[in-house]
Amino acid sequence: MVVNLERLFSSKATRMKASEIREILKLTQAPGVISMAGGLPNPDAFPVEIIRQCVDRVLTEHALSALQYGTTEGLPALRSEIAKRMREKKGIDCEMHDVLVINGAQQGLSFIAFNFIDPGDTYISTAPTYLGAIQAFHAFGANCEAIPMIDENFDIDALRRNINRMTKTGVYPKFIYVVPTFQNPSGETMPLDNRKALLEVASEYDLLIVEDDPYGELLFEGDPVPTIKSLDRKGRVIYLGTFSKILAPGFRLGWTIASRDILNKFILTKQAMDLCTNVFGQYVAYEYMSQGYLDQQILKIREMYGRKRDIMLNAIKEHFPPGIKWTTPTGGLFLWVTLPRSVNTRLMLQKALEKKVAYVVGDAFYPDGSQYNSMRLNFSYCKDEELREGVKRLADVIREELEMTPDEERSIGNGV
Amino acid sequence: MVVNLERLFSSKATRMKASEIREILKLTQAPGVISMAGGLPNPDAFPVEIIRQCVDRVLTEHALSALQYGTTEGLPALRSEIAKRMREKKGIDCEMHDVLVINGAQQGLSFIAFNFIDPGDTYISTAPTYLGAIQAFHAFGANCEAIPMIDENFDIDALRRNINRMTKTGVYPKFIYVVPTFQNPSGETMPLDNRKALLEVASEYDLLIVEDDPYGELLFEGDPVPTIKSLDRKGRVIYLGTFSKILAPGFRLGWTIASRDILNKFILTKQAMDLCTNVFGQYVAYEYMSQGYLDQQILKIREMYGRKRDIMLNAIKEHFPPGIKWTTPTGGLFLWVTLPRSVNTRLMLQKALEKKVAYVVGDAFYPDGSQYNSMRLNFSYCKDEELREGVKRLADVIREELEMTPDEERSIGNGV
Repeated sequence: MVVNLERLFSSKATRMKASEIREILKLTQAPGVISMAGGLPNPDAFPVEIIRQCVDRVLTEHALSALQYGTTEGLPALRSEIAKRMREKKGIDCEMHDVLVINGAQQGLSFIAFNFIDPGDTYISTAPTYLGAIQAFHAFGANCEAIPMIDENFDIDALRRNINRMTKTGVYPKFIYVVPTFQNPSGETMPLDNRKALLEVASEYDLLIVEDDPYGELLFEGDPVPTIKSLDRKGRVIYLGTFSKILAPGFRLGWTIASRDILNKFILTKQAMDLCTNVFGQYVAYEYMSQGYLDQQILKIREMYGRKRDIMLNAIKEHFPPGIKWTTPTGGLFLWVTLPRSVNTRLMLQKALEKKVAYVVGDAFYPDGSQYNSMRLNFSYCKDEELREGVKRLADVIREELEMTPDEERSIGNGV
Repeated sequence: MVVNLERLFSSKATRMKASEIREILKLTQAPGVISMAGGLPNPDAFPVEIIRQCVDRVLTEHALSALQYGTTEGLPALRSEIAKRMREKKGIDCEMHDVLVINGAQQGLSFIAFNFIDPGDTYISTAPTYLGAIQAFHAFGANCEAIPMIDENFDIDALRRNINRMTKTGVYPKFIYVVPTFQNPSGETMPLDNRKALLEVASEYDLLIVEDDPYGELLFEGDPVPTIKSLDRKGRVIYLGTFSKILAPGFRLGWTIASRDILNKFILTKQAMDLCTNVFGQYVAYEYMSQGYLDQQILKIREMYGRKRDIMLNAIKEHFPPGIKWTTPTGGLFLWVTLPRSVNTRLMLQKALEKKVAYVVGDAFYPDGSQYNSMRLNFSYCKDEELREGVKRLADVIREELEMTPDEERSIGNGV
């Protein structure tokens, strides 16, 4: 008898579809293509020699524990270092026991989905938002209520209106998901007042806030805006951090900070899911933090990515035709380009690939796929000269696209 | 407003309870206690210097890729090495594309639960069975139908009877979970005929088989029994392997081999759950395999654990009072002790801890907690002299317990 998988698969498995956008991303990796599509840190910034020293120390001083199973919560010494940094740099009132080490922040998103989403439950997100969050939440059957950003602000009025409308029909959302600092994909940062207002609404309607903060340390200019978690006195915010951008993605290490009741559920979830996070990597990260290498590395990345952002912005100003809007991020990896409404960036991508340049189509970051005239550009990964050439090629593609479009349709797209 | 977590938690989160047995395990870690409770590999066997060479090679030759994000499927070179070994040592007809690298075999169990269990769905397991599997499956709301082992055999008649009974009431189980080789907890190995019969039943009723094989390489004597996966021609078996016992648990690396349709779902699941497995560890494991270190390490562990098993068995024979049964595993980490039915090993544990010796109570491995007079002993972790002393202490505890029991109740427990 042949296996009848249709009968055997769970409804979660049946619902899960291959991410179309990840398939598209594969196309951007063709030879010769300058890809501003990915979201990778720049490998030239990896602190290889420092990592070699840390690894050597781990194998000399802690080999037998670093190679053994670890506790589900994570290496206590690393959790202490993380808690200390979160207190000092992020204003988060926490100590070791408030920190759970996870396989990158993405695992935190899946734990949130596991613990707060029953099929059909609703969460609230900005539009646009991080692709991987959409994937994690939807894997567990979540519905998304997307609220637009107005400039850098979460639209608080729209948020209230939407929650009121939902609750009238018996829909009680579970949490609000935000990447408030140097957002993926827009590069934008929610101002302090907007963060406070968001927390107030969450409190009023008794919702959680998920603050996903992978880029917060990558600040190029100005003062950091306080984290939402630092404003939280009630355990309403679940904070996610990661080593992927400040050490290296290859160790697959992140952390989450949440109230005790929530963290206890996450620990049980992790026990069932994969027992513990890779211990060797945790020891390396601990050495890296405790020896003081982290701050010097962050300075290096800020300088490098800040320079690359400037290169990209200058090239955009020089080459892009009129009628186009873009964000000017003060940190992070990405900026966001909004074209006139006559342009569909998904249709345009094929032409861009022919001209050997790639971006991520904007609709990928809309839970409902609604905005079609935007794109995300990454400035962290490419070499400086590739950034200049890539933007130039992209400008040519856009110009050709606009020339095919009747003048009256050339109005600027809204929504971002 | 205070956060009302009761309203916000999903039904999965609400259902999930702290594992009582893991709480008990913590007690066994008190100072001075000889613990035969854990399931840890012996750190004296960790190939520290070889790992140092592999790490050095990774940082010299592959640093920039090893520190970057990796593909969800895993490092192609590592997947090829795993596929080659699975063909050569396990008779499994597979190539690179059939292998997915995961965070230890435990993550495979959670992927199986995610993709095949809707709340209330039933799976079939042996009794006793691996604790972590119970936890992973039950986290997704599974019901377990437990089938006893008769000596080393899955009770095929009972299996048929149970499936027939279930299907009559409209319950169609999804899969059969087994650790067929050097089982955790019993140390027993299903004979080839029994494996074939199991596959036949699975085929007849169109069920999947989950073959969890963390210990298969740790063979002390005799010939290896073919894996169930090697007998599978229809993609009915999902195979799970791990580096935790043959390299080190600290890298948190395992793999799964399954039919293309199933593996594709697992890849999507992994993408949503944590994007990819830690790349640095994958490179180390690749160097370790491709440089030929794995085989010499396995020889070392076989010799060490085989010796420790003998020490434990000899001490049991010397010290245990009459009326007790135990298994004689030909590989792995564990053996299983069955006491007279008058003894409740859970109640006895307190006395054992007072005498500074620990084991895992047998009922922890029964999905329904039904058998109370057995225990799991681990022989891989303790030093040789601790094993001798630990068994001696345990024998004293058992003897005292039996002396408190009326003679007529001293019959041997059944079930294992």
